[in-house]
Amino acid sequence: MLGRTYDREVCSAARALEIAGERWSLLILRNAAFASMTRFTDFQQRLGIAPNVLTARLEHFVAEGLMTASPAPTGYAEYHLTEKGLDFKPVILALTEWGDRWAALDGPPIRYEHDQCGGHVSVRLHCDACGTSVPVKAVTARPTAAMARAQQRRRAGPSRRGPPGRDSSGTRGRAHPS
Amino acid sequence: MLGRTYDREVCSAARALEIAGERWSLLILRNAAFASMTRFTDFQQRLGIAPNVLTARLEHFVAEGLMTASPAPTGYAEYHLTEKGLDFKPVILALTEWGDRWAALDGPPIRYEHDQCGGHVSVRLHCDACGTSVPVKAVTARPTAAMARAQQRRRAGPSRRGPPGRDSSGTRGRAHPS
Repeated sequence: MLGRTYDREVCSAARALEIAGERWSLLILRNAAFASMTRFTDFQQRLGIAPNVLTARLEHFVAEGLMTASPAPTGYAEYHLTEKGLDFKPVILALTEWGDRWAALDGPPIRYEHDQCGGHVSVRLHCDACGTSVPVKAVTARPTAAMARAQQRRRAGPSRRGPPGRDSSGTRGRAHPS
Repeated sequence: MLGRTYDREVCSAARALEIAGERWSLLILRNAAFASMTRFTDFQQRLGIAPNVLTARLEHFVAEGLMTASPAPTGYAEYHLTEKGLDFKPVILALTEWGDRWAALDGPPIRYEHDQCGGHVSVRLHCDACGTSVPVKAVTARPTAAMARAQQRRRAGPSRRGPPGRDSSGTRGRAHPS
């Protein structure tokens, strides 16, 4: 688990990585989200991942509420993504676009399509105020009041950590962009 | 290095994770991209990361072309993101949004702002054909001709791997969504 590693961080990206940043985690979510994979043996065979690692990842996803495990007619468990798990799709698309741009010399091996019209789906940084597409160089991170509260709590005493995945990022850690 | 781990994968997301999926990597890129951090000691102190790990990550980023290292007037090296490194911003924003939605009980500690107007910047899945914002449930992954070529090469013989980071995702591996 990455939880303790990033414990000092007041950062939602760090929280996301604690839950899905372990080796193989995002590729398991990718196969569940985009290849409709549900069975242990399918994940294992398609990813070539060690069974003990796969077991740990799937159990972790169930514990964190990213997947549910239900007995299938075959007797084996089937793993289905919850809304929380499906919500990693934009992370997977953003990683894919980076790889397409910088590491896919033979062209993108996968095309993401809009179910309604078949159009190509891309990741955009969108300004909610002026409605334009924002280039990466024109985005700045600013700490919020929640960050200030977290820093205040941190100065007041030692950080406390709740149960995995239920903790607020505001209860501990250090600010990154201040 | 994750390179060998995901070697079977014909997937740009796997390529991106090979380059920036190691523990701490994305948080180092985050601090470089959004906190304008350039110095080893600043990364080390702010992240609380072991010096040997930080050295490995920064050297890896320089080798992969995500950062350049230049001697500063102080005598210490300064690490600056290249365009390739800055291009991880959408990945960091997507991870942040997931964490904001699912793990920040006290509210988002960071707000991403558009430099031009100060508006809130969010990640959208955008359909390039119909121009609408696409919900995560309405995105499907389809293999391309590049995927077919990669699979053909794979059937023809054992996978070959070039130098790290310079290899095409099309030269090896297995398809995920087919």
